[in-house]
Amino acid sequence: MEKSILHRLFSGLRAGGLEVRYWDGSRGRYGDGETRVRLVINDPSVFPRVFNEPELAFGEAYMDGRVEVEGDLHDLVRLAIVNRDALAGESSNRLGLRVLKSFPRFRSAARQKEDVQYHYDLGNDFFRLWLDETMSYSCAYFKTPEDTLFQAQLNKIDHILRKLQLSPGQTLLDIGSGWGWLIIRAAEQYGVKALGITLSEEQTALSRRRVAERGLEGQVEVELMDYRLLAGKGVQFDRVVSVGMFEHVGRDRLHNYMESVQRLLVPGGLSMLHTITHLKEDPVNAWIEKYIFPGGYIPSLRETIWLLPEYDFHLLDVESLRLHYVRTLEHWAGNYEAVLDQVRAQYGDRFSRMWRFYLNSCAASFRCSGLDVHQVLFSRGLNNDLALTRDHIYA
Amino acid sequence: MEKSILHRLFSGLRAGGLEVRYWDGSRGRYGDGETRVRLVINDPSVFPRVFNEPELAFGEAYMDGRVEVEGDLHDLVRLAIVNRDALAGESSNRLGLRVLKSFPRFRSAARQKEDVQYHYDLGNDFFRLWLDETMSYSCAYFKTPEDTLFQAQLNKIDHILRKLQLSPGQTLLDIGSGWGWLIIRAAEQYGVKALGITLSEEQTALSRRRVAERGLEGQVEVELMDYRLLAGKGVQFDRVVSVGMFEHVGRDRLHNYMESVQRLLVPGGLSMLHTITHLKEDPVNAWIEKYIFPGGYIPSLRETIWLLPEYDFHLLDVESLRLHYVRTLEHWAGNYEAVLDQVRAQYGDRFSRMWRFYLNSCAASFRCSGLDVHQVLFSRGLNNDLALTRDHIYA
Repeated sequence: MEKSILHRLFSGLRAGGLEVRYWDGSRGRYGDGETRVRLVINDPSVFPRVFNEPELAFGEAYMDGRVEVEGDLHDLVRLAIVNRDALAGESSNRLGLRVLKSFPRFRSAARQKEDVQYHYDLGNDFFRLWLDETMSYSCAYFKTPEDTLFQAQLNKIDHILRKLQLSPGQTLLDIGSGWGWLIIRAAEQYGVKALGITLSEEQTALSRRRVAERGLEGQVEVELMDYRLLAGKGVQFDRVVSVGMFEHVGRDRLHNYMESVQRLLVPGGLSMLHTITHLKEDPVNAWIEKYIFPGGYIPSLRETIWLLPEYDFHLLDVESLRLHYVRTLEHWAGNYEAVLDQVRAQYGDRFSRMWRFYLNSCAASFRCSGLDVHQVLFSRGLNNDLALTRDHIYA
Repeated sequence: MEKSILHRLFSGLRAGGLEVRYWDGSRGRYGDGETRVRLVINDPSVFPRVFNEPELAFGEAYMDGRVEVEGDLHDLVRLAIVNRDALAGESSNRLGLRVLKSFPRFRSAARQKEDVQYHYDLGNDFFRLWLDETMSYSCAYFKTPEDTLFQAQLNKIDHILRKLQLSPGQTLLDIGSGWGWLIIRAAEQYGVKALGITLSEEQTALSRRRVAERGLEGQVEVELMDYRLLAGKGVQFDRVVSVGMFEHVGRDRLHNYMESVQRLLVPGGLSMLHTITHLKEDPVNAWIEKYIFPGGYIPSLRETIWLLPEYDFHLLDVESLRLHYVRTLEHWAGNYEAVLDQVRAQYGDRFSRMWRFYLNSCAASFRCSGLDVHQVLFSRGLNNDLALTRDHIYA
């Protein structure tokens, strides 16, 4: 029974090819394209749940090994996404659509408020295994396809700093300053006074040490502080930047972020918002919400831009870095693959599969779905003294 | 009586300085700043109407010579805009705010559907007097402040073509192709096949002549055709561009434009929308609607961007060219000033004052208010083969 439903589902495949090995050892080959990936379904009991709670169930089945993928997991997710319409359109079932929703494309389903915060319990040892030296957990900027991930993360910082049109003596605030690479580089390269704020004690301590090592005390400061608290203090900056923190603000509080930036920015000041975006306003995928990204919300670009005029922010420059995030995630997934045994030994098999599923799904989602990343540059009110062209970014 | 009301109004001035000469020869000096402009009020009867129908009345009073400006008209409008809050905040009157609304900042007031289409009755002889050789009536792109207007208009075309990432053999549609400069340059520089459509017979004839002179028949075509009609024909293009035509679409039909572009664009194709924008959704100023720009609507950037995902358009690049439009308008206003006597002789005093008021008001509005111009680049669906960076625009 289960097999015939699945067979009808997979028969909807239009682009690419898929091999499926069922629990009884039988195989099916679907689609016309080259078969680069095999889905192994070890346990038929998986499927009622996939149809009832699709978002959670597929990811959990993969984590538990009840479903396995032989070949490139990235390819499987890509296959699911590009065949979405064909599969969902099958007269045979609406089940197809529901199963497809189980792939973490950061899409659909009601947010779950479960407090399973694997992410924050992890500590940095885990991320150090597969991130680059800057420990950046956001999209890099590849000037050429050959750039290493480390180089591309430095490029990203430079790209942002150039867009911000800094000049010596100006003040810069980095909301969510991580390990301090951006503020240190801004101080060294542009002579600005920079403040980084973060909610992580470990980041605060390490950033401060790095600032001290470079003799930048007095020019660069790092505070363990919420940006809303800082916004209440009446202090203002010439430039305000945030990289990969807007996704953690939550949909109900996007306007709080904007209001805080308005208060923190001098009139005529520039702000850069670097954030993952959705094409439309979709809730976070339930599996991702539960296991990877609790409490977050990926805003649509358009709802973000809609807010700007409410705070007298004038839009100067928007750039999509979607193809850069595909590369970034492929680097991460590749690095992760190389340390998979170590992750498994240290954190267990289920956990290691969870992150494998996540990183590969994300790479495929940025490549094939409405997931994007944008850099949004705006001024508070008008500024008639800004650069006339964007030449300075590319000089 | 009128004088005391006006005196209270002008006393609200905070930034800059203004001298006023009243109809009885008396003078007032307002504000602390340097007085670079004098408002001459020749006729007290002007003012009841300014308070009742502010948008139309000030412009018409200026056209009729009942109000005159000695010094730089641009400065006067700028003064009005930058003092908007101070003047409107005067406890003395709400009249202040209403008078300020009379300056054409493309703002406020209900649209008037009067059919006074001076603009279209004018013919090209008028525009030829003060536009550059390309006859471009849209924002230029100044690579350096020293660029001539002609050079800057060519730069604008190149800037757009570079953003469109053209390659030989591709097809390009220019909606509202004017005198054909963009399509001809696209064909010559990039080897694309280009179609320009326009609603002007004169533009069609001249563009075709220019195409023939260059031996580009077969590669470049020009048709007298509405874009909606073309969208119904099932033909598709790799690239679709429009420069300064979206403002004429009208608010109720913005979605028709998007739908047409979706139909006209191949999947993965790129489109560039170059348009004047408002910060928020404001109706066109009644004076401008009546005398300059009948039937048009300046969209807000955010409502334009909001529409994109409805047509599966993915936003790649947005650039504000506001400071370029200030320069463009200053060039136009300067050119216009040089031919003012000729315009007066040929079209009459009232007409000559009307356009003088318009061009100077616009320059001030782009400099000081929420009026902007944006280039918006998007793809139909996803395209993973696009350039990784924007380097190609600046190479």
